[in-house]
Amino acid sequence: MSADAIATDSPVLAAARRAREAAAVLAPLPRSVKDAALLAVADALEARTAEITAANTEDVARAREAGTAESVVDRLTLTAERVAAIASDVRDVVGLPDPVGEVLRGYTLPNGLDVRQVRVPLGVVGIIYEARPNVTVDAAALCLKSGNAVLLRGSASAYRSNTKLVEVLRDAVASAGLPADSVQLVPGESRESVKELMRARGLVDVLIPRGGASLIRTVVEESLVPVIETGTGNCHVYVDAQADLGSAVEILLNSKAQRVSVCNSAETLLVHRDIADAFLPLALDALAGAGVTVHGDAAVQQAAREHGGPATVVPATDEDWETEYLSYDIAAAVVDTLDDAVAHIRRWSSGHTEAIVTTSQAAARRFTQLVDSTTVAVNASTRFTDGGQFGFGAEIGISTQKLHARGPMGLPELTSTKYILTGDGHIRP
Amino acid sequence: MSADAIATDSPVLAAARRAREAAAVLAPLPRSVKDAALLAVADALEARTAEITAANTEDVARAREAGTAESVVDRLTLTAERVAAIASDVRDVVGLPDPVGEVLRGYTLPNGLDVRQVRVPLGVVGIIYEARPNVTVDAAALCLKSGNAVLLRGSASAYRSNTKLVEVLRDAVASAGLPADSVQLVPGESRESVKELMRARGLVDVLIPRGGASLIRTVVEESLVPVIETGTGNCHVYVDAQADLGSAVEILLNSKAQRVSVCNSAETLLVHRDIADAFLPLALDALAGAGVTVHGDAAVQQAAREHGGPATVVPATDEDWETEYLSYDIAAAVVDTLDDAVAHIRRWSSGHTEAIVTTSQAAARRFTQLVDSTTVAVNASTRFTDGGQFGFGAEIGISTQKLHARGPMGLPELTSTKYILTGDGHIRP
Repeated sequence: MSADAIATDSPVLAAARRAREAAAVLAPLPRSVKDAALLAVADALEARTAEITAANTEDVARAREAGTAESVVDRLTLTAERVAAIASDVRDVVGLPDPVGEVLRGYTLPNGLDVRQVRVPLGVVGIIYEARPNVTVDAAALCLKSGNAVLLRGSASAYRSNTKLVEVLRDAVASAGLPADSVQLVPGESRESVKELMRARGLVDVLIPRGGASLIRTVVEESLVPVIETGTGNCHVYVDAQADLGSAVEILLNSKAQRVSVCNSAETLLVHRDIADAFLPLALDALAGAGVTVHGDAAVQQAAREHGGPATVVPATDEDWETEYLSYDIAAAVVDTLDDAVAHIRRWSSGHTEAIVTTSQAAARRFTQLVDSTTVAVNASTRFTDGGQFGFGAEIGISTQKLHARGPMGLPELTSTKYILTGDGHIRP
Repeated sequence: MSADAIATDSPVLAAARRAREAAAVLAPLPRSVKDAALLAVADALEARTAEITAANTEDVARAREAGTAESVVDRLTLTAERVAAIASDVRDVVGLPDPVGEVLRGYTLPNGLDVRQVRVPLGVVGIIYEARPNVTVDAAALCLKSGNAVLLRGSASAYRSNTKLVEVLRDAVASAGLPADSVQLVPGESRESVKELMRARGLVDVLIPRGGASLIRTVVEESLVPVIETGTGNCHVYVDAQADLGSAVEILLNSKAQRVSVCNSAETLLVHRDIADAFLPLALDALAGAGVTVHGDAAVQQAAREHGGPATVVPATDEDWETEYLSYDIAAAVVDTLDDAVAHIRRWSSGHTEAIVTTSQAAARRFTQLVDSTTVAVNASTRFTDGGQFGFGAEIGISTQKLHARGPMGLPELTSTKYILTGDGHIRP
């Protein structure tokens, strides 16, 4: 195995090797044992809240000293209430079914050989993430439940918080009789530790980068370990020729402005020409009311001038079509046909989520068939693309790639499969 | 999209871009249209057999001039009978169910929003393969059936055969009303064309290398396009303390010697110490009878000396444990326990297929739980790990990785999924 080809055992590779040993212990464990460990984790988080918030206070102080934006500081901050909420999330994972052991296919061949395709853990999962320390616990809980060992590589700004959280997690897991190395923080705060993780093919089974576009791009381009790409969301709302205007405004507003900083928020509005005169004035007023700046094409600019309302419309360039604003901005264009909307989406979308608002069954069917994104929403907000909303109970990220998993990833997406053949002396003729 | 980041349109990238356009046409097609195109392909292969064998004759002549081994020349050769068999395989694909459109999950959320997870084509599939021109047609047929456009990059030695086959395929596909660019041969015979394919992230959705270990390693390490690793098989047969001796000999022989050049043939025999004295003499005689050289550890060498039969046993080194011989050779060792057998497999196996021969239910259960390979066979030959044997009807390769697909890959493994949400004005509170 390529694992043995790596001669030097740096701290990162040594951690990966220990994770591999732990994964072999975790893989065959029944649900009851894994759930007991998760309950121990939840209890320990609550019992040791003071230690956790104390470590976090140091990270927060340093962040403030470094002049970090308050919104980022807020995401970094752990209060007693937030720790309690994280513990509660862990208990929710206890309640989720164990994906391991599920038989996905099972049949008997004509020669009498039984074939079963069974879910098994992936093995060692590496998560590379930014800022929010709650991800440390979420990711560890999901990996444990699915029988995987996890290597956590958080951001340097949360290093003290993550170190303490992982200490608490490891103690709790060990107290439940599982290997402490089921959960490890990747040693080192430097970029080099990420690079080593990306080279640990054969030791690490998958890397999941969660965070900004540049982190994800780096991992996708440089990793020798298989990667699941997550998160970039240039989402579209298309208002069809036949659409309920009130519903269209509500879906547009919710998709854009319910929470602007997330990947499933809308970044572009496309409007069919036949409904543009009726819809755009309503849309421009509503967007202006929510504080959203519209980056419009010529037709949208014209509509704004004719409407003369409070709307702010600035001219859109090609850059706007491809931008994931994550802010109170939206690009907007008028299209001649549904197929033109699909073509625009095919060209510019990141393939996350696109919504159509329509009363036409034919339009809904064509749009869902032709749009090639993780999620297509018909008469619903783009904001529903989320593991929690989908009823997965928890989410390790949203895959925007086509291999392995696409869309919100829950516990089943943290598994692979193996085939078990059972015969009684079967040989191939 | 990253597709647009690629500014220069080399012939390879231009082909990938055309494939992307074709894929958009193929994705929503119903089964009947795709099946009609496949029947046209089968008919065309038969009607144009003379053209195909004429092109192949040139490849064969050049291969012979270049002093290519006869076994490789044989794999390269297309006779009228072989072309007829290839056409028949295409008709078999027509009979397989269409994976596209299958609903994998479907439920209604508490808020009334309908969630459906539906199989969709991957998009553009790149296949990089060696020697055998039948792969050209097999891969194209499987990709078409699953709604994918395919970029075929065969070996230079089969360039004339593949060029003609792809010409026949494209003419047939176009005659059925589908885009000719659904099937394309990657332009150029040089290594550079493979490199360009590996850089075409955003245009090509997946690369599947089929062939030797060095080809696969290169693609895995260098590709920016997601890769499915296939084929390396260092497979093991473990004979447990309690085993039917006759069945164990038959399974060992079949696993090793029924066909030695394939990835699912066995390369290492592990024997429990408690049965070694009874089993090894039988095994050594049987292997010698089949012309197999045994590379044994000290215990196996000792058994051979004591047995004094016709067996040839040479000393094994660590290199033997990790070698995929693909020849009439097998490594052999005696282990103290089932767990030692598992540890040996975990250390040295390529994770393809491992068999246990046992009459013990407990041993069978433990072995299948602990061995982490694509396929675990209980009382059956390793040779069953094969899409055809599994009843898939056809196979695009055998994945030895854990992401996306593991084990033999049929039509469903050539798909991704998308979520379709249907509401009536649903927004997130």
